[in-house]
Amino acid sequence: MQGKIALEEHFAMEGTVHDSAGFAPAEDWVELKARLLDIHDRRLAEMDAHGIEMMLLSLNAPAVQALSDRNRAVDLSRRANDFLAEQVARRPDRFQGLAALPMQDPDAAARELDRCASALGFRGALVNGFSELAGTDHALYYDRKEFWPFWSEVERLGVPFYLHPRNPLAKDAAIYEGHRWLLGPTWAFGQETAVHALRLMGCGLFDAHPRLQIILGHMGEGLPYSMWRVDNHNKWMRTQNAYPARRKIADYFRENFYITTSGNFRTQALIDAMLEIGADRILFSTDWPFENIDHAADWFDTAAISEGDRLKIGRDNARALFGLGDA
Amino acid sequence: MQGKIALEEHFAMEGTVHDSAGFAPAEDWVELKARLLDIHDRRLAEMDAHGIEMMLLSLNAPAVQALSDRNRAVDLSRRANDFLAEQVARRPDRFQGLAALPMQDPDAAARELDRCASALGFRGALVNGFSELAGTDHALYYDRKEFWPFWSEVERLGVPFYLHPRNPLAKDAAIYEGHRWLLGPTWAFGQETAVHALRLMGCGLFDAHPRLQIILGHMGEGLPYSMWRVDNHNKWMRTQNAYPARRKIADYFRENFYITTSGNFRTQALIDAMLEIGADRILFSTDWPFENIDHAADWFDTAAISEGDRLKIGRDNARALFGLGDA
Amino acid sequence: MQGKIALEEHFAMEGTVHDSAGFAPAEDWVELKARLLDIHDRRLAEMDAHGIEMMLLSLNAPAVQALSDRNRAVDLSRRANDFLAEQVARRPDRFQGLAALPMQDPDAAARELDRCASALGFRGALVNGFSELAGTDHALYYDRKEFWPFWSEVERLGVPFYLHPRNPLAKDAAIYEGHRWLLGPTWAFGQETAVHALRLMGCGLFDAHPRLQIILGHMGEGLPYSMWRVDNHNKWMRTQNAYPARRKIADYFRENFYITTSGNFRTQALIDAMLEIGADRILFSTDWPFENIDHAADWFDTAAISEGDRLKIGRDNARALFGLGDA
Amino acid sequence: MQGKIALEEHFAMEGTVHDSAGFAPAEDWVELKARLLDIHDRRLAEMDAHGIEMMLLSLNAPAVQALSDRNRAVDLSRRANDFLAEQVARRPDRFQGLAALPMQDPDAAARELDRCASALGFRGALVNGFSELAGTDHALYYDRKEFWPFWSEVERLGVPFYLHPRNPLAKDAAIYEGHRWLLGPTWAFGQETAVHALRLMGCGLFDAHPRLQIILGHMGEGLPYSMWRVDNHNKWMRTQNAYPARRKIADYFRENFYITTSGNFRTQALIDAMLEIGADRILFSTDWPFENIDHAADWFDTAAISEGDRLKIGRDNARALFGLGDA
Ligand SMILES: [Zn+2]
Ligand SMILES: [Zn+2]
Ligand SMILES: [Zn+2]
Ligand SMILES: [Zn+2]
Repeated sequence: MQGKIALEEHFAMEGTVHDSAGFAPAEDWVELKARLLDIHDRRLAEMDAHGIEMMLLSLNAPAVQALSDRNRAVDLSRRANDFLAEQVARRPDRFQGLAALPMQDPDAAARELDRCASALGFRGALVNGFSELAGTDHALYYDRKEFWPFWSEVERLGVPFYLHPRNPLAKDAAIYEGHRWLLGPTWAFGQETAVHALRLMGCGLFDAHPRLQIILGHMGEGLPYSMWRVDNHNKWMRTQNAYPARRKIADYFRENFYITTSGNFRTQALIDAMLEIGADRILFSTDWPFENIDHAADWFDTAAISEGDRLKIGRDNARALFGLGDA
Repeated sequence: MQGKIALEEHFAMEGTVHDSAGFAPAEDWVELKARLLDIHDRRLAEMDAHGIEMMLLSLNAPAVQALSDRNRAVDLSRRANDFLAEQVARRPDRFQGLAALPMQDPDAAARELDRCASALGFRGALVNGFSELAGTDHALYYDRKEFWPFWSEVERLGVPFYLHPRNPLAKDAAIYEGHRWLLGPTWAFGQETAVHALRLMGCGLFDAHPRLQIILGHMGEGLPYSMWRVDNHNKWMRTQNAYPARRKIADYFRENFYITTSGNFRTQALIDAMLEIGADRILFSTDWPFENIDHAADWFDTAAISEGDRLKIGRDNARALFGLGDA
Repeated sequence: MQGKIALEEHFAMEGTVHDSAGFAPAEDWVELKARLLDIHDRRLAEMDAHGIEMMLLSLNAPAVQALSDRNRAVDLSRRANDFLAEQVARRPDRFQGLAALPMQDPDAAARELDRCASALGFRGALVNGFSELAGTDHALYYDRKEFWPFWSEVERLGVPFYLHPRNPLAKDAAIYEGHRWLLGPTWAFGQETAVHALRLMGCGLFDAHPRLQIILGHMGEGLPYSMWRVDNHNKWMRTQNAYPARRKIADYFRENFYITTSGNFRTQALIDAMLEIGADRILFSTDWPFENIDHAADWFDTAAISEGDRLKIGRDNARALFGLGDA
Repeated sequence: MQGKIALEEHFAMEGTVHDSAGFAPAEDWVELKARLLDIHDRRLAEMDAHGIEMMLLSLNAPAVQALSDRNRAVDLSRRANDFLAEQVARRPDRFQGLAALPMQDPDAAARELDRCASALGFRGALVNGFSELAGTDHALYYDRKEFWPFWSEVERLGVPFYLHPRNPLAKDAAIYEGHRWLLGPTWAFGQETAVHALRLMGCGLFDAHPRLQIILGHMGEGLPYSMWRVDNHNKWMRTQNAYPARRKIADYFRENFYITTSGNFRTQALIDAMLEIGADRILFSTDWPFENIDHAADWFDTAAISEGDRLKIGRDNARALFGLGDA
């Protein structure tokens, strides 16, 4: 399929690229690093070769979210977004931006998002999971009350928020001890991000801000398969899930969430997702440069779905969600 | 469908029933407790009413696994298994047994399994996830080397091992802080059990003991949807998952695992599971008394699958796996 | 689901009701006849009871299409449409009309459709397959050149055309000899209507009139399952299908056709149709009074699809296609 | 996948090859003819290249079935089967035989099948739809009473019977007039063969001979998608389908039929078939030389199904059905 739009697509700056070193074995790091630092050469050639018209770019992970110093987080966000804006300005027909945000400081994050959306023309934000913060021994998840004013601003700006994975803190990763291979995209990314998303759903955030739209990668981080059980286990009991939100979790999932195909090029999972959240809320993505664009595109272009859904998932849903027009 | 066999079906004794109290709100505890303590009345009536010919019974959770005192674990296992054997003896046409095992003491667990399989006629074992052990601050997962002689004995006996969920230790549950509703069947059960299963697959256990058969409940604890990504993320990198096992994780999943429908009565998930692990390795179960038998049976009897697969999943696969004959 | 719209829903007048007698065994004819002649009593009660907000009504089959006398066909169409307009006027919030058309006389059919759309406010037309015509020994299919001016008018009016089944002429039904049970909805309806639709696709009609929208009932009369083979058999040969149309048959199917669930309440088939033509082109219908409304609604309301797709198939697609607004 | 078995694979002799001329455009006839006449060269090379260990070979179509002279039909069958036996004898590790049968003479057909199964070691029969017979103006379908002794012999021999398509007689093809492109595999093959199969199911044959196993190609000739409607249309009526057989049509379909993937390399249809008839009754096939082996194998080897089902459909089901052992 020609004209695809992809939206979990990462770049790095010299100052952040080493955050990705842990995600490649030593023998592949040279290649991964080169891919991350490139925007206009190899990347564009891959896009051309595999029918991707546009990428929404975002900073690599965890980057900003791992800076426990608030000021450094604010500073890095600003620099990364300025850098990205420059790159986009060179090829606005092929690249658009998603903002990095210093969630350690919710007010600053809201201001930076406003600046990115208003002044830089960014289409939304991509945040790498929970944030670390000096003086706090635990991961900051964004269902906490101190983030609600931030969410209010996201809703006001009307831009989507991509909740991207990161690994758990070492202190919270006992279950993976002796099995580091389970960290990252193998498994831990999904658990981290799915639970973070569930916390957002259960906390009542979407009752207060029903127009918020959150994007999850990797075919929904496992949620479509398990969403029924979240709401329906032990159905005979009078109370099942005691959370502040007013509705079923699945209601929020299908009204406030989109999922992408990034890093999960599996037709069986795609079909299951279509039968749970529907083709209108699924978006093509690759997760470049961690995944190959040809792996994503060759799979998607021939996956066993209808051609109409292929157009929607491959392009039209993203156009509508990000207001990309027909350009 | 008549003649169904169900295999994640729990009972409690007076000494263990309170382990289940945390899984019901106060207003439903009386009912849950009564259901757990009953075997021959309400349970049989429900089975008769919904076409369940046989239940393989197992002790409630976490029971034995939560006893950090090795001797108490050994003692409780033995008492529970003796009690269960008496119940089965009253109606062997309707009930068969799965052994509780004191995994805190691998040798004792192996001996108890041998006793249950040989002397009591049990059909396999059901263990409630990791074990706690005095003097150890972490959860004991069964991929650890000290359990390999136990697994060797399981393979020798040729009986299936049901890996049942439990909640993480409090120290490992930070991600659920402020969101206790995510514990138990809502979400944490799945994460615990899926990772435990992945550890077994990755550690090489099934290379050494290829005939082992592990059963996972709840439509596979999320694994079918995410299994492709476990093996295929970042596919261009020369090494992806560095684990001791020799083969792809999915190879073990489809050769050494079965999954059941317990507590996950969702056709979309069932279809996805059928397209990942195949109907030959899916088994009907309800998770009584936490789930209602009518909820399970009414769903399963009309789910959108072929009648041939319904017979296999509902009965024939279990017959073959547990050697239940045509009785 | 509340608020459903159904669009293959039939009524009869005293003059046409006997056309349906062959579709019921004698013991059920009294009931079927009563259902066909009723509009405002039993029908509305059924709609209320099963969440159907609106029915688009159409005359029973074959009615007009079986009148080999052109003038009688014109006359019956007009009378039926006037009668239907009166019924709709009594409850425009619950009923809308689809025109009967005297296709034996393409000019008259075009004029009658114009009258129905413009003067009577009908939403489209429903025609019962091929027409018979005095002096012609064969079935008149609407790909024939004499119908193209009619199709031009349909496109100009911008209203959908429902191609409803009928049985083959006796002379063309040799394959069913000795097996009359295969006639009607069992099998022959599907073959007749699918081939008629394929003729329309292959003749080039949709190249000339790309905005035409044809509706097929009964989950697409078998076409979704076989559409790939229509275009892709013997793929190595340089020419496969020699027909006048310019594009692949599947291209027309997904751009010029909608399908409904009438009389085919099967989740497996619905899922297959969703993966071939997509949820945007599937519409809920029952085929009352030949099918029960509860059979259709109970199935559809719980079928294993996403809630978003349920809303689209159950109501929103029909609203958009027929311009029904939010009323 | 290595080790596949394919069973709708045709060859021709000089005397029958022209029967296939109508299925290729002139420019492809040289190639098709060469493919049909080859067995040990190009064919084996294709098999080697695409993981097909064994082909069950059958004569091209319609061949014997189109000979209205009984004696010629008997003679051609015998010659074709002798020729095939010689070819199989040269490479029994790679080829096995399916018998051509002179159904115009049911007794002779039974004797020839016995000879093929007993003396020639054939694994079953493949018959090209209805037979023509001098003095009869209609197609002979095999539900007719004169064929029941033949079916009794098929059951006694315990060999499968492949019901292969052919086109309708010209007198019965009015619906395709002006649209010859709809003949053959595009559409008419499916209608002919599906109705023939339905006649067998409805006539009561499988009540009398419950061990008969019929194979249909092309993913079941459309039947899986429409089977529910065959049995369930107009469900409220007290009698729906009046046929001699005692059970629902779907019961026979899933107990007396297998389907193959020949010429229908579509994942969506395969999944639907799996949800209707189950993976245990689906068999890989290509329909060589009308279809390319690479088209069939490349699709099947990566289709979105479980690896366990791939092994069954690709090989193990055929092994069990035809008694091919593990060779
Ligand atoms: Zn990413
Ligand atoms: Zn349980
Ligand atoms: Zn109808
Ligand atoms: Zn063939």
